[in-house]
Amino acid sequence: MTASAEPIRVGVLGAHGRMGGQAVKAVREATDLDLVAAVDVEDSLSALTDAGADVVVDFTHPDAVMDNLRFAIEHGIHAVVGTTGFTDDRIATVTGWLADKPELGVLIAPNFALGAVLAMRFAQQAARFYAAAEVIELHHNRKADAPSGTAAHTARLIARARADAGLAPGTDATTAQLAGARGADIEDVPVHSVRLPGLVAHEEILFGAEGETLTIRHDSLDRVSFMPGVLLGVRTVPHRPGLTVGLEHVLDL
Amino acid sequence: MTASAEPIRVGVLGAHGRMGGQAVKAVREATDLDLVAAVDVEDSLSALTDAGADVVVDFTHPDAVMDNLRFAIEHGIHAVVGTTGFTDDRIATVTGWLADKPELGVLIAPNFALGAVLAMRFAQQAARFYAAAEVIELHHNRKADAPSGTAAHTARLIARARADAGLAPGTDATTAQLAGARGADIEDVPVHSVRLPGLVAHEEILFGAEGETLTIRHDSLDRVSFMPGVLLGVRTVPHRPGLTVGLEHVLDL
Amino acid sequence: MTASAEPIRVGVLGAHGRMGGQAVKAVREATDLDLVAAVDVEDSLSALTDAGADVVVDFTHPDAVMDNLRFAIEHGIHAVVGTTGFTDDRIATVTGWLADKPELGVLIAPNFALGAVLAMRFAQQAARFYAAAEVIELHHNRKADAPSGTAAHTARLIARARADAGLAPGTDATTAQLAGARGADIEDVPVHSVRLPGLVAHEEILFGAEGETLTIRHDSLDRVSFMPGVLLGVRTVPHRPGLTVGLEHVLDL
Amino acid sequence: MTASAEPIRVGVLGAHGRMGGQAVKAVREATDLDLVAAVDVEDSLSALTDAGADVVVDFTHPDAVMDNLRFAIEHGIHAVVGTTGFTDDRIATVTGWLADKPELGVLIAPNFALGAVLAMRFAQQAARFYAAAEVIELHHNRKADAPSGTAAHTARLIARARADAGLAPGTDATTAQLAGARGADIEDVPVHSVRLPGLVAHEEILFGAEGETLTIRHDSLDRVSFMPGVLLGVRTVPHRPGLTVGLEHVLDL
Repeated sequence: MTASAEPIRVGVLGAHGRMGGQAVKAVREATDLDLVAAVDVEDSLSALTDAGADVVVDFTHPDAVMDNLRFAIEHGIHAVVGTTGFTDDRIATVTGWLADKPELGVLIAPNFALGAVLAMRFAQQAARFYAAAEVIELHHNRKADAPSGTAAHTARLIARARADAGLAPGTDATTAQLAGARGADIEDVPVHSVRLPGLVAHEEILFGAEGETLTIRHDSLDRVSFMPGVLLGVRTVPHRPGLTVGLEHVLDL
Repeated sequence: MTASAEPIRVGVLGAHGRMGGQAVKAVREATDLDLVAAVDVEDSLSALTDAGADVVVDFTHPDAVMDNLRFAIEHGIHAVVGTTGFTDDRIATVTGWLADKPELGVLIAPNFALGAVLAMRFAQQAARFYAAAEVIELHHNRKADAPSGTAAHTARLIARARADAGLAPGTDATTAQLAGARGADIEDVPVHSVRLPGLVAHEEILFGAEGETLTIRHDSLDRVSFMPGVLLGVRTVPHRPGLTVGLEHVLDL
Repeated sequence: MTASAEPIRVGVLGAHGRMGGQAVKAVREATDLDLVAAVDVEDSLSALTDAGADVVVDFTHPDAVMDNLRFAIEHGIHAVVGTTGFTDDRIATVTGWLADKPELGVLIAPNFALGAVLAMRFAQQAARFYAAAEVIELHHNRKADAPSGTAAHTARLIARARADAGLAPGTDATTAQLAGARGADIEDVPVHSVRLPGLVAHEEILFGAEGETLTIRHDSLDRVSFMPGVLLGVRTVPHRPGLTVGLEHVLDL
Repeated sequence: MTASAEPIRVGVLGAHGRMGGQAVKAVREATDLDLVAAVDVEDSLSALTDAGADVVVDFTHPDAVMDNLRFAIEHGIHAVVGTTGFTDDRIATVTGWLADKPELGVLIAPNFALGAVLAMRFAQQAARFYAAAEVIELHHNRKADAPSGTAAHTARLIARARADAGLAPGTDATTAQLAGARGADIEDVPVHSVRLPGLVAHEEILFGAEGETLTIRHDSLDRVSFMPGVLLGVRTVPHRPGLTVGLEHVLDL
């Protein structure tokens, strides 16, 4: 990655939050980026314009993010957004705001973990070459939902890639089953959820064909792992006008 | 393993079957064993006595095995049995036959795979030290039952070891679940079954406690892997009078 | 995968060999392919032209393959070649032969295992997003070379992808090392070779960044796993004029 | 685990250190234990006797631990020691002190991670049943030594168990090797060290025989995982007179 001649001037919104705090630290440590504003809920957004921010990073709250984005777009500031809650309506609204600012870039990403995004992309690419696929996701035993959102999304991507390639569902010869043994069925892709203390967040995608298997595994231990994805967004968004949803589109695979 | 001074004279019943054929080959290749009879369904059992067999290995059929065993015990031949179908009744019958021959040893084992037996034993030993455990078994997609018998048995052994140690069931915070995601429930131990072409027979036992996990995995690719267990049985059974059920008892762990 | 209206007419050279035999079987079982000739060393190549083959599959010998290819190209038959021994000189020679037949396609692939090719491709794609990478390959204990050719090639692909992205070598804080502990060094990518009976052919590629790891693993148990790659080549090569070296180019990732 | 009628009165030395602090917390949370003293370097050891401690936990420093132990033994307090630096000389000295107090128990353990201790024990038990074994240990890239002490110790335990069983070294057919590919050689057991950011502390022990492999893996993410071992020591040591070195002896496997 070649640093641009001039450092990119970055403001962080939600700077006192867990993710925002990590972003502040990551921007500070990057030699090609300048942290020019660290803004939290009690501060005014004008800190961004006062500081001449080129890009704003938003890890705030669904209640605040739309106002933040409108401000950024009005003032010609590119945006990288990790805040959740983006419905189709909200996406349409942001697209409308950007219509008047064709040079501005906005990246909204539900998942900044490069490894998770790569694992999903590889799963999509591999899916059409294999007779069948299954997903195992493993998390700590305090997690409330099973399967995880990432695993369910991965299963759907695999199912679609298989359908696009004209593949029939994987054959399953199971005739006698204890309820649940074969996992949850997401569009014919079985998904298994393991919950144990000592685990953090792990996903394993298995593909099988006669005589071979391919496994893609992502182990996530710490939210610091989201920062390379955030910084990649910050570096890319000034050169990528319009709205981009999903980190996978800036990975340039 | 020190070879005894005199080679042990071994007869194999079911010598033309898949497992019996492997046993013939394995006995032949062992320098401390002499293959003295290879008997199949069309042959007379007297081949064993004619050849002076010390130990007979039985990989025949549930319909034949009881007659074979009675013959062996009557003629003072130790026995190693891999044939299935041993109900409690049959076990009691064999015990009765052995009452008159206190010097004879019979080993009946449902599973001669050393690795599978070791994995189950270790799972039992580890169970009481962990807050929770889960089992993942992975097999080729032609398997009819889920979970596998070995995985179900492993889960039960874990559950009993936990109960013996006074442990409560592992806590599971799952409140929103897609049916099947958390696997089959075997006495509070979740068991997950993966079925893919390209797999053979694999079992993974996961234990979790705060800050750590322990995983025991057995991968079985070929029935040749049962032979070391069979040979261990052949070498052990002359020195182990009475009936032994389960290879784990001769492993001397 | 949509079958073309007319089945493709396929001839197999080396039909009695281990790989060729598998190819004969795989072509026979594919509904969109017609096996029109199964040729071995004692047969004449004219069997291909007599049978009107569209595509020839060559699993023969380095001593025979160039004559085979010249014959195929002269007679307007596309070729899929798994035979080894293609030096730069041989590649140049084949390119020369194809100059006069611009409509013909030839695919030469050192590795037809889709999973191995996908694993290498994904490793290349992931490499620039991670601070460091290592490769572990695991094979049966009869293998003569360490590391395997595939693992060494994978390490080189990773090293090149890292260099292309301007990444410095992964930092290694090891100051006290028992010789060999950190593996073989292939362009700054450590490669570890495990050799055990019970293993077949396995490759694991590990990528690490702060707080996360990504692992890509390929398990190959049987050469039947090469057949989907061969069939993909057979279906693709008529629409891909010129010489293609490496299955990865027809995967269309 | 059944709690004794009376809670055990526990004092912690090194209470402000990283491990000692965890021990203070763990003792506090255990319903069958009473934290009666939390002592650090600036405090007097008499706090232990004033509080009537039954057991002292020592996570201090090699320079302090011998004085602490002498004090505990003189005053009839059992001890659980995680401090390092116990040479044969020191062990002999402690044994001498204990000669006059036959009812007192002292447990000195270099490793309180139950999972690591179990993994080593299982490796020892499995070793004699397999033709060959290898160890892979994986740590973060700030680790200075390779292989890890635990992996080297595990390899030695395997080597000894193999020797005790009369097994020859595993055969290795490698004839062409890139230096280091086959790992470090510890008494004929290959050990491979992987170093990547994103890893914490992981050990994998692989055993192979014809047709099968057995893998034991321990993943350690946080030093909180040492606490169950410490508490097990505290509960056991009053009933285990004399000196015990190594947590494995109190696991009662």
